[in-house]
Amino acid sequence: VSSASRTDARVLGNRRAVQQAALQALTADGVAGLSVDRLAELSGVSRSTIYRHWPDLRTLVVTAFAEILRAAEPVDDVADPARALADYLHDYARRLNDPMYATVLVTILEWSWRDPEFAREHAGIFDHSRSRARRIIAAGQARGVFDPKARLDDAVEAVVAPFLYRRLVLRRTIGEQEVRSLHTAIVRYAPA
Amino acid sequence: VSSASRTDARVLGNRRAVQQAALQALTADGVAGLSVDRLAELSGVSRSTIYRHWPDLRTLVVTAFAEILRAAEPVDDVADPARALADYLHDYARRLNDPMYATVLVTILEWSWRDPEFAREHAGIFDHSRSRARRIIAAGQARGVFDPKARLDDAVEAVVAPFLYRRLVLRRTIGEQEVRSLHTAIVRYAPA
Repeated sequence: VSSASRTDARVLGNRRAVQQAALQALTADGVAGLSVDRLAELSGVSRSTIYRHWPDLRTLVVTAFAEILRAAEPVDDVADPARALADYLHDYARRLNDPMYATVLVTILEWSWRDPEFAREHAGIFDHSRSRARRIIAAGQARGVFDPKARLDDAVEAVVAPFLYRRLVLRRTIGEQEVRSLHTAIVRYAPA
Repeated sequence: VSSASRTDARVLGNRRAVQQAALQALTADGVAGLSVDRLAELSGVSRSTIYRHWPDLRTLVVTAFAEILRAAEPVDDVADPARALADYLHDYARRLNDPMYATVLVTILEWSWRDPEFAREHAGIFDHSRSRARRIIAAGQARGVFDPKARLDDAVEAVVAPFLYRRLVLRRTIGEQEVRSLHTAIVRYAPA
């Protein structure tokens, strides 16, 4: 093993440890928990290394979150759109139910709202998940499994918005029955 | 005019001025703008009066917001549910498009998420608006104007969630066309 690859592995290990610490601190204590001291303590990475590599802790959080989002999204078989939609809704509910996920989501919404520059920089963070829903809906409309008269944008929002509302506004977790109910509502309106 | 009623009028005037200052400061500068010094400066009410009457600035914000919410909600004529729904969606879009409203909403979501006690105390803040949507949907289902097969909870969320998603997550304002499109989607599914 060369010295360069040992360094790479250490850099990656530090990166993962500091990212994990950031999400953990944010979930436990909100934005107040996001300090370099705290991240150093949780991750075992030195304060100077954190300052050097992650001078902006908000960007650290968004990057960590974006990597989790990307890692979680499988490639759907859109030949069976009703099944792909069921998989998507299950994944989405499971993620939203995770307190870490929901906390980071609320935090990023608040940062983005307060700081337009931050918002512009990270506007693409939910694109991956929305594109997945969009592919499934478009395939289902093309095959007549979902209502083909709905505008695609509206149909995508009918999929992604209700659980988000329930979780962030009503602060409820999403149950199995609610996943089935939304799925039925979307599949039901195919022309007979 | 008695001395007591002069005092009442002054108390009410102070209250209105401090509430207005709180919403204005929050909208302009986020939570960092919410200080007693700033509210005294904006409202002309003394710091000691603010400390005495509104020791918790978060509660001041929620109370001010709740009064705006209640004042904005008319009583609908649910004998014409399609028309009542159109009025509701217009009102809702107009409110969400107001930067003050959206900023306070994001802030309250974030406070509620971070602080379960605060959340419990103010859980009812959106009840009024949700009850209005629920009355309209229930009346429309009973008259066959909206899909009677949808669960009432799901139908209410199909009304309130998409605009909220668009405004808070995508940070877009809600246009006239989007109001019409959601209205059409909900009315369209009445059994013929």
